[in-house]
Amino acid sequence: MSMNKEVIKRRINAIRQQLNRKKIDCLIVTKPANVNYTTGFMGDDSWALVTKGGVYLLTDSRYTEQAEKECIGCKIVQRTNSMAEAVGKLLKKLKSVRTVAVEKSTSLADFEGLKKHVKPRLKTAANIIETIRSSKDGSEIAAIRVAARIAAQALKQTLRYIKPGITESELAGRLDFQICKLGATNSFGTIVAFGPNASRPHHQPGRRKLKKKDAVLIDFGAKYKGYCCDITRSFAVGKASSLFEKSYNAVQQAQTAAIRTIKAGVEMVKVDAAARQAICSSDLPVYGHGTGHGFGLEIHELPFLKPESKGKLKAGDVLTIEPGIYLPGKLGVRIEDDILVTETGYKILTHDCPHSLLI
Amino acid sequence: MSMNKEVIKRRINAIRQQLNRKKIDCLIVTKPANVNYTTGFMGDDSWALVTKGGVYLLTDSRYTEQAEKECIGCKIVQRTNSMAEAVGKLLKKLKSVRTVAVEKSTSLADFEGLKKHVKPRLKTAANIIETIRSSKDGSEIAAIRVAARIAAQALKQTLRYIKPGITESELAGRLDFQICKLGATNSFGTIVAFGPNASRPHHQPGRRKLKKKDAVLIDFGAKYKGYCCDITRSFAVGKASSLFEKSYNAVQQAQTAAIRTIKAGVEMVKVDAAARQAICSSDLPVYGHGTGHGFGLEIHELPFLKPESKGKLKAGDVLTIEPGIYLPGKLGVRIEDDILVTETGYKILTHDCPHSLLI
Repeated sequence: MSMNKEVIKRRINAIRQQLNRKKIDCLIVTKPANVNYTTGFMGDDSWALVTKGGVYLLTDSRYTEQAEKECIGCKIVQRTNSMAEAVGKLLKKLKSVRTVAVEKSTSLADFEGLKKHVKPRLKTAANIIETIRSSKDGSEIAAIRVAARIAAQALKQTLRYIKPGITESELAGRLDFQICKLGATNSFGTIVAFGPNASRPHHQPGRRKLKKKDAVLIDFGAKYKGYCCDITRSFAVGKASSLFEKSYNAVQQAQTAAIRTIKAGVEMVKVDAAARQAICSSDLPVYGHGTGHGFGLEIHELPFLKPESKGKLKAGDVLTIEPGIYLPGKLGVRIEDDILVTETGYKILTHDCPHSLLI
Repeated sequence: MSMNKEVIKRRINAIRQQLNRKKIDCLIVTKPANVNYTTGFMGDDSWALVTKGGVYLLTDSRYTEQAEKECIGCKIVQRTNSMAEAVGKLLKKLKSVRTVAVEKSTSLADFEGLKKHVKPRLKTAANIIETIRSSKDGSEIAAIRVAARIAAQALKQTLRYIKPGITESELAGRLDFQICKLGATNSFGTIVAFGPNASRPHHQPGRRKLKKKDAVLIDFGAKYKGYCCDITRSFAVGKASSLFEKSYNAVQQAQTAAIRTIKAGVEMVKVDAAARQAICSSDLPVYGHGTGHGFGLEIHELPFLKPESKGKLKAGDVLTIEPGIYLPGKLGVRIEDDILVTETGYKILTHDCPHSLLI
């Protein structure tokens, strides 16, 4: 995401407020999406440090040219030794830093390295940036809208290839290429499942060929300026079996029921339960996965909608609603859309991508 | 990788030997590639446990059907609560387990969860499976060879699109689609860089259009049955500038110099130094990245060839050799091939993909 100074400044202020509350002088940011959020940098293998006085990107020679182009309001430090050593060296210069925290998503190996090289007290901190990231700002919502539009357009342009004989892999490849031609990349590895393969929610596309009357499940997303979208469509080709039609209608009703509950301040479990209850009353089996998840710089991020979820939706949250029905050996149906939570209700970000029982 | 019982058995035996040496009764395997290596399972969000008596895959309902198909010689445990709770519950049943180790690549957050739920003593262990994985067995080398052949074929079929006006993104998309049509996926996000963009070793393909006499850098790989390959080709379109030709020749010589040193028992630093010395003597700047890295189930794995590398090459190691020259604002050249280390020397696995200064 190419960002302006104001956006980054607001983010850093929000992070510093949390650090202040937790009495942390310096946060070591190791998760790539959080490094991106904090600095604008879109490469890999780089960490950021946020202190009261500055923001630092620690990267290596493969990325310094890119960092100079992408980073806003942060100092770029080119490391030649290990990341932990580079952090230790930088912290020695920042004399006012007494308490340092590292993100809990960091590996044990990296933490061990840091303990060797960092002199100030080293703590851990969970979800500081992730919690801030869950509410999207205007520039983020704009990027997600473009990603959703590209995904919808790419799927539309791919539909003509859905004919008996095409393999799952080839259909996935055609869709990915359309996404690419429209100037985006994939949010994650596209799932294309034909017939009973769709009963595995995370099926990997393979050599299975489409047969007449097969059902198709496509779960995919476009990533634009760093921001993901996440869409699933299920449909029968030409003619739907009565079991497929029944399942499809139950999933559609479950999704609608869940979406209608969405509004800032609503308990997340209430949204989750609305979808599950609708499936329950169809006497088909209730799905084992969550009803939805936040997304943005990562394809799965806060909040998560599950039966055990705690907390309420906030305005600015962006999340999927994706109930499904899975009958091993028979079929799988899932419908997934991307929703923006507002003060008064919700906006569907994926309305360009129509639902339909048949194609 | 669809594997036979013997292959998995050999791997588990090798892991158990290490556990025995380190007095560990149970290893908690959290890294996806290690879970795959240990169980055959190719999905995500799943952990494995290796004890003296058994191998267990902990997964959830999205993956149980897939796990039953893919796993060999391991018990599948479907979890409904958190991963840490599921591990704790399983360990309660395994009464002879006294010392448990978790992989050091695990996050601090997951380790904290485990500490809550695991009663036996909890230690950490680094690179147990990674070290075993660095030497490839016959089935792995076979898969890498297929991946390399597919990558070469895909690039060949993409060359005809390299004409003035095509964007980096579109060229990357064309290449990815060929890989897909040939039955593989990408090892990582394809890098296509035109002209001076190639001076950023990890450039992300964008909207820049190919101009006449531009140079092109493509860094890409195919993944087949879980196994990666990793290839970079650089070339000028139609006519090379004298600076490009000089750089190309220096990189080519550096790569040849490094490859010629490869043989089981050779110090890794010696291979790294051979490439750097060749670039040095061309009075062009020496690259800041490593000379090469192992790959297999992951795109970057042991061993790593760097000036600070310790240790010797072993027969069965598979690694890249990829020196480069980067002149910001001017050009970037990198040539990368995949090499199998043998007792008597080496085999180039990417010989189907020709080098050439021009296309």
